[in-house]
Amino acid sequence: MKAARFNGPKDIEITDIPAPVLRAGAVAIDIAWCGICGTDLHEFLEGPIFIPAKGHPHPLTHEQEPVTMGHEFSGTVSAVGEGVTDVTVGEHVVVEPYFVCGECAPCKEGRYNLCTKMGFIGLAGGGGGLSEKIVVDRRWVHPVGDIPLDEAALIEPLSVGHHAFVRSGAKSGDVAFVGGAGPIGLLLAAVLKAEGLTVIVSELSEARKSKALSTGVADHVLDPSKDDIAARVLELTGGLGADVCFECSSVNAVLDQLLVVVKPGGVVVNVSIWAERASIDMQALVLKEIDLRGTIAYVNDHPATIKLVQDGKVHLAPFITAKIPLDRLVADGFDTLIRHNETAVKILVHP
Amino acid sequence: MKAARFNGPKDIEITDIPAPVLRAGAVAIDIAWCGICGTDLHEFLEGPIFIPAKGHPHPLTHEQEPVTMGHEFSGTVSAVGEGVTDVTVGEHVVVEPYFVCGECAPCKEGRYNLCTKMGFIGLAGGGGGLSEKIVVDRRWVHPVGDIPLDEAALIEPLSVGHHAFVRSGAKSGDVAFVGGAGPIGLLLAAVLKAEGLTVIVSELSEARKSKALSTGVADHVLDPSKDDIAARVLELTGGLGADVCFECSSVNAVLDQLLVVVKPGGVVVNVSIWAERASIDMQALVLKEIDLRGTIAYVNDHPATIKLVQDGKVHLAPFITAKIPLDRLVADGFDTLIRHNETAVKILVHP
Repeated sequence: MKAARFNGPKDIEITDIPAPVLRAGAVAIDIAWCGICGTDLHEFLEGPIFIPAKGHPHPLTHEQEPVTMGHEFSGTVSAVGEGVTDVTVGEHVVVEPYFVCGECAPCKEGRYNLCTKMGFIGLAGGGGGLSEKIVVDRRWVHPVGDIPLDEAALIEPLSVGHHAFVRSGAKSGDVAFVGGAGPIGLLLAAVLKAEGLTVIVSELSEARKSKALSTGVADHVLDPSKDDIAARVLELTGGLGADVCFECSSVNAVLDQLLVVVKPGGVVVNVSIWAERASIDMQALVLKEIDLRGTIAYVNDHPATIKLVQDGKVHLAPFITAKIPLDRLVADGFDTLIRHNETAVKILVHP
Repeated sequence: MKAARFNGPKDIEITDIPAPVLRAGAVAIDIAWCGICGTDLHEFLEGPIFIPAKGHPHPLTHEQEPVTMGHEFSGTVSAVGEGVTDVTVGEHVVVEPYFVCGECAPCKEGRYNLCTKMGFIGLAGGGGGLSEKIVVDRRWVHPVGDIPLDEAALIEPLSVGHHAFVRSGAKSGDVAFVGGAGPIGLLLAAVLKAEGLTVIVSELSEARKSKALSTGVADHVLDPSKDDIAARVLELTGGLGADVCFECSSVNAVLDQLLVVVKPGGVVVNVSIWAERASIDMQALVLKEIDLRGTIAYVNDHPATIKLVQDGKVHLAPFITAKIPLDRLVADGFDTLIRHNETAVKILVHP
């Protein structure tokens, strides 16, 4: 079968590899669509980062580069392994792309996203969504009912947004401030809106500002190059400040802004991945008793996330900005994301 | 009456001022003992910081420098104002030294320590503990029963530790790591021990390490100049890491250490006041889903804190390292703290 294999930085090859073999307790899936994630882009440009480098096999998959890429995918069940009775052939599914040990303290506490050996399908081995077929343990397969398969490929990044929402402790009626309207900022905003929050988005890019407004995920879109953000947030919140803030840019000035606009006693969730250390105003953190919380991926978020889409509370179609075949992955996928980063939200790849 | 008045940096004068006048709803107190706080020291060296500078009166007290200092005090009720029926003359009390507006969002939510106009007795005006007498609204007066008045003067900083414990969400049986064993680190450790936690203290100073051990507030004392802290904490926690960590040093290397030794999904509480911004490993915050929480002063902590002392779960006497008269405040108080910072824990002043 065809698969996109990571051989090294800027060296992703579409090649033929053996199809995966079905095993007991697992589900075979014909992949329909796979989204390109910012993480994939970082691997393409500077990897291996999360991908296990040669000589350093992943402790759970025992694989190392080259590996098949892609972890944001949907597909149709083609066969089920021995013992799998609650998923049927022909069913539409998405995959929560984890490898976890099940034995470490976080796993035992149910916070498997913090597994000390955690790996991702499409990065750590085990195949990937940027190929024709995959075999995944039943535990990680989530049926999506009648959600169109192209939209279903966005369930994975939407779950990242859902988990950030859960981590924030926010509730319906709260005011959320989202710093940065890239793909994760927009999908997080969609979750927040669906959960009944008022959503203020801060973003510099015209294209992203337009998307935040046209998709209806933001009630207010502010531009730090034009607006006095702190004054506007106070104005929009009756002088109180935002209940919860989300850092989705990995830009220090944005993080600084969140500590200013969050209300005393409020929560700031950092969603973005930072390549560098951040500088923090500890005086604000202390005097306002701010909770600064990290969030990574998702844990038991897929069912609630899928329901938001099934119930029509989140509309994913507007976030799909291109659909390309697998053999155009680099030319129309990675290169487009590098060159036209602002207009592309989610590019889907069909194998 | 005699009072210590802040006139400017390194200019604290023991002088005669009119005694305060009792008012309805308030309690008149003859001050017994007043502790010197790190905040007082900062004001002495570099103030006015929290003290309202000339021309910038505090919004609630309408006072400005010179003000009477001291906010960690105990005393005996000498008279009660009209309408005060639940405090009696002769009773031993401590004071929660707040001015709050009662009208802002944090006040209305009960988080009055985050009042947007918040001021402290002994800094913002309203008299102070470094004088013979004070009059305080009934709301802020807490009877201490038979706790000796010298020890009672430490209830205020102990409440800071209690509030940091509450903010951490820690529970009996958890392992706490305290970075820095200055007065607040030691008193926080005392609360943690009293609440049933295992307490690991990290400290460089020999005098402070000895105090943490001799007072019994630490189960383990580590020295970052000698011990591999990360390895030792893993060893002491069966490979899990600390459940909660407390930053009590305002040293960036200590904060960094806390993000390393805290368990995945754990909580780091910043207790110290930082004069500068901090640098943070955001990758650790994200990938371990750490909660970094600010904590300031106390809110409804005094009753539980007083009970810990009354029940014999916290012994405050060992933390009193000197007792001096008011007219020796600068020579034997501030100057000692500046010169012998490591051996002095709490110096009490008798007016």
